[in-house]
Amino acid sequence: MAVSRISVKLSADGGMSDITGQVQGELEKTGLAEGIVTVFMPGSTGAITTIEYEPGLVKNDLPEALARIAPADIPYEHHKRWGDDNGRGHVKASIMSPSLVVPFTEGELTLGTWQQIVAINWDTRPRRREIIVQIMGE
Amino acid sequence: MAVSRISVKLSADGGMSDITGQVQGELEKTGLAEGIVTVFMPGSTGAITTIEYEPGLVKNDLPEALARIAPADIPYEHHKRWGDDNGRGHVKASIMSPSLVVPFTEGELTLGTWQQIVAINWDTRPRRREIIVQIMGE
Amino acid sequence: MAVSRISVKLSADGGMSDITGQVQGELEKTGLAEGIVTVFMPGSTGAITTIEYEPGLVKNDLPEALARIAPADIPYEHHKRWGDDNGRGHVKASIMSPSLVVPFTEGELTLGTWQQIVAINWDTRPRRREIIVQIMGE
Repeated sequence: MAVSRISVKLSADGGMSDITGQVQGELEKTGLAEGIVTVFMPGSTGAITTIEYEPGLVKNDLPEALARIAPADIPYEHHKRWGDDNGRGHVKASIMSPSLVVPFTEGELTLGTWQQIVAINWDTRPRRREIIVQIMGE
Repeated sequence: MAVSRISVKLSADGGMSDITGQVQGELEKTGLAEGIVTVFMPGSTGAITTIEYEPGLVKNDLPEALARIAPADIPYEHHKRWGDDNGRGHVKASIMSPSLVVPFTEGELTLGTWQQIVAINWDTRPRRREIIVQIMGE
Repeated sequence: MAVSRISVKLSADGGMSDITGQVQGELEKTGLAEGIVTVFMPGSTGAITTIEYEPGLVKNDLPEALARIAPADIPYEHHKRWGDDNGRGHVKASIMSPSLVVPFTEGELTLGTWQQIVAINWDTRPRRREIIVQIMGE
């Protein structure tokens, strides 16, 4: 069992980083062969998921789909509470989940060829994020 | 390793409860220092996620976003099968997921300061829900 | 600890298969009493979730809700990159997550009575999928 932290700088409103290599690197440090990796983003405006990491999906298609669920140009009750402007970011993060569990076998993550693990910042300002990588196995 | 159940009473159509304190309490009972907690809601109209638990997001912004995906005022094929009226609740639950995994270190959940674990009832009637808290670590 | 693979053939654009029996079968082979099962779909156009597995939700209500987030009839930047036509499938998969963790106690998955584990193919062509079932416990 091992836990480590990955630090990434992410732009606003859907800024995304491919952290697959860093997660695989943490896995290799443990020397474990089989088990699960939990990737978790602390904070209520971030998400962890997988995607084919190419600019069309990353910069346009996924953020535009989330903007249909939580548009920028509607009122949010959250803004009345703190004077914030990031209600849409909270909504997107809660729907997408801050947590992802990926199995590994023979020391390798069981991802598809075109499937990368990404950290996403849905906040309305750029954020540095510390991501937890928890590894269990034998 | 330990497993326990949390019971919460939730209102209809997005009724939400902050269960962070109860999950942390179950973790403390185990005396474990490092590992993962799996929070799971049995049932096909409930979800587990994280959110900043303040009334604007909880009562308005998140439920309104989910209602854009699964509106109340459209027909659902599910209703023809059982005479149910909760097709929208099933859809919201399947999209959001009934499961959340959160790592812990030094006996503490690795949540952000403004990030709470919530149980959500997307059914169209109030429901008492039993939530599973499964803890693994050392 | 054990890991196995389930193979399912899935139709296009939301083709779904109830894999609950196969997951429970893999669990029984291990003889483990308590722990967690991680169900993971390799690939960037697939998802794992739970649903009440009846045709109205499976064939209509859930796919139609996802089509509101990622419609078929809008342009996707992803298509410009590879000449693909499955941008909507990638978007749906990233939002829904390829991973699900379900606790088990006394050798049984802690699912609700009407709650089944499903594998979903959001790609725009039928796909055979290999699903990872990772089991940890004691």
